[in-house]
Amino acid sequence: MRTRPLKVALLGCGVVGSEVARIMTTHADDLAARIGAPVELAGVAVRRPSKVREGIDPALITTDATALVKRGDIDVVVEVIGGIEPARTLITTAFEHGASVVSANKALLAQDGAALHAAAEANGKDLYYEAAVAGAIPLIRPLRESLAGDKVNRVLGIVNGTTNFILDKMDSTGAGYQEALDEATALGYAEADPTADVEGFDAAAKAAILAGIAFHTRVRLDDVHREGMTEVTAADFASAKEMGCTIKLLAICERAEDGASVTARVHPAMIPLTHPLASVRGAYNAVFVESDASGQLMFYGPGAGGSPTASAVLGDLVAVCRNRLSGATGPGESAYAALPVSPMGDVVTRYHISLDVADKPGVLAQVATVFAEHGVSIDTVRQQGKDGEASLVVVTHRASDAALGGTVEALRKLDTVRGVASIMRVEGE
Amino acid sequence: MRTRPLKVALLGCGVVGSEVARIMTTHADDLAARIGAPVELAGVAVRRPSKVREGIDPALITTDATALVKRGDIDVVVEVIGGIEPARTLITTAFEHGASVVSANKALLAQDGAALHAAAEANGKDLYYEAAVAGAIPLIRPLRESLAGDKVNRVLGIVNGTTNFILDKMDSTGAGYQEALDEATALGYAEADPTADVEGFDAAAKAAILAGIAFHTRVRLDDVHREGMTEVTAADFASAKEMGCTIKLLAICERAEDGASVTARVHPAMIPLTHPLASVRGAYNAVFVESDASGQLMFYGPGAGGSPTASAVLGDLVAVCRNRLSGATGPGESAYAALPVSPMGDVVTRYHISLDVADKPGVLAQVATVFAEHGVSIDTVRQQGKDGEASLVVVTHRASDAALGGTVEALRKLDTVRGVASIMRVEGE
Repeated sequence: MRTRPLKVALLGCGVVGSEVARIMTTHADDLAARIGAPVELAGVAVRRPSKVREGIDPALITTDATALVKRGDIDVVVEVIGGIEPARTLITTAFEHGASVVSANKALLAQDGAALHAAAEANGKDLYYEAAVAGAIPLIRPLRESLAGDKVNRVLGIVNGTTNFILDKMDSTGAGYQEALDEATALGYAEADPTADVEGFDAAAKAAILAGIAFHTRVRLDDVHREGMTEVTAADFASAKEMGCTIKLLAICERAEDGASVTARVHPAMIPLTHPLASVRGAYNAVFVESDASGQLMFYGPGAGGSPTASAVLGDLVAVCRNRLSGATGPGESAYAALPVSPMGDVVTRYHISLDVADKPGVLAQVATVFAEHGVSIDTVRQQGKDGEASLVVVTHRASDAALGGTVEALRKLDTVRGVASIMRVEGE
Repeated sequence: MRTRPLKVALLGCGVVGSEVARIMTTHADDLAARIGAPVELAGVAVRRPSKVREGIDPALITTDATALVKRGDIDVVVEVIGGIEPARTLITTAFEHGASVVSANKALLAQDGAALHAAAEANGKDLYYEAAVAGAIPLIRPLRESLAGDKVNRVLGIVNGTTNFILDKMDSTGAGYQEALDEATALGYAEADPTADVEGFDAAAKAAILAGIAFHTRVRLDDVHREGMTEVTAADFASAKEMGCTIKLLAICERAEDGASVTARVHPAMIPLTHPLASVRGAYNAVFVESDASGQLMFYGPGAGGSPTASAVLGDLVAVCRNRLSGATGPGESAYAALPVSPMGDVVTRYHISLDVADKPGVLAQVATVFAEHGVSIDTVRQQGKDGEASLVVVTHRASDAALGGTVEALRKLDTVRGVASIMRVEGE
């Protein structure tokens, strides 16, 4: 074993960073044995240097992250500060000064992954980011390496623990969105400002990263159709139950049936209770991957939290350190397929639509005609009347999102349709 | 991209090999783009050269596998013939003649993994074998790389599809073992001679491989305690149901609580219906991995079959080819921890024991005394009487297998105990 240590600079020492530092210290011998050389924490960049950080030598603490990544003797920079800047500049500076990078920064990778990969490649360095998607669950490496000889057609998953906690709570207790969110906040599963989670931004970033790797195509955050889950109601869950379904916020990356384009989207959807994703509870994550040769694979585990995320960071750290010792780099960006990313209108799926309609003869015929005119085939209709008002629940066969959108627009114009109570996609069948 | 192709020799062209050859041809462009150089099928060693093999140039077919691996221009040998010999000699010969090796051979790796790894290392070559455990499910790579910075404490899984199909059938239809086996055979899930599957040899080989990687310790097939599932009865399933459990054939690799030793075992066990492994149906496989930092992860998918196994082989092929191009090798054997493998008697778990006893006063007291004398604490006892005969169902708290064995031996000597109807471990709680 090499005795000269590999030097690691840690950018950020919050929930994840402090756990990375802790494990690097407590498991130093194991890490050295697995890497083939000791690893040494050479510096820790933080915003608040006065905070007491147990187990970390105060001499390592600095507020000057830029100087740390420019030192020139750093082998690996571990970036766990998150956000776009200064993380982006620090990472590219690290590459320019000879370091490889392990990052957990999903937002940055979803927005600027291509540029970061290019910077890594230009400098002959590694960029690893298993922790950016679904915490400890190995997903990036299986997609990038284990399935490198296969053709992935679909990635379907629960990749945000906060929203899964909220939806699970609504499902199991009948609570409304706000009540469930309040509980998630109280228990620390939701942040004070939950926007990134509940509006689907976090999941959309992960969808962009997963789609890019799965389809060997650049997919940016802007390419991902995103709908949050703040408008999911207790009534939606009641409708889902009648369908033998529950509701999950799903990230879905699909290759079109003709193979010539891909789509990526995040939205709440009904999935059958018999689908393995339906039983993913609390803040857990799970991702289905469907490929030509492998069939259906599922990966399940804790999608967030300091320890699980640190586990993913450290796995990458070991890999990157091994690469440094052998003088090689791991697989970089693979975007050779360069498939076009189609808009949401091209997505084909099934829909569950609740309409408030006038309770009089001929309404169903009128509504059915609108669906037919837009080429959307109806699977089932359920009609319920009460006091001159009635509701129609329509479940369609597979149709394009554009056709469904046109249908709904036309339905809204019917005198007999008082309102469209909800539209929800049905997935996983 | 390099234009000179990497040359692949395929040893075996059965269900898996023919699928590997097919994908190498149909997906040649994708593989080249992902590797950075084209891959060329340079030879296919078979036993029956006269068999028509669609899509494979007859000029590539040979019966002389030894000459093929000795050619000297082969970059990667893909070994999918299985069994100990000639596979072992062919693999070591391949290393000596400059090739890296991708193998799906669980039996050989479980028996001689250390020697094969040593041969690979001595020649500076790669030995990859994702396909040896749980078909397409990425398990070796996640354990060896994704969790390389974590401490794995437990691997618990269903790693044999044939036996899971049989047990699932017994559970869902109430069928006996023989009836369910007959159906599995008729449907092609069980081989004409099902011994390797139903007696747990196949699962034990996989347990040895998984334990070795998980604990950075050499674990051989002989170190794995193995019990088959041929004696599981419909009555056992009835008992399991009363417990809120089902029965699965599990491979269990554990680190002892003090961390100083490990165990590996394969046997049928009751697991709660609420455990995710309980709902693994048909011939699917699923493996739970528990680590210090990551918590519980689960990997699920098709555990066998030509296509899924080929997916795993091709993922390894891409990785090994990339390594050849970069002049590096991937992670080799990691056995530095060298923990002792403890015997089955040291395993601590819970037990479900059915006793046929005389239906008279004092029997329960007698039985309870025997348990107490052996230090095995009872959780619940259920007593059922019928016509002078009675049965006692005892569920214990956690106890060592040795203590339980001593208890059962003593119980058999009691006049009032007519027989021990079944003993089954209870896992996954």
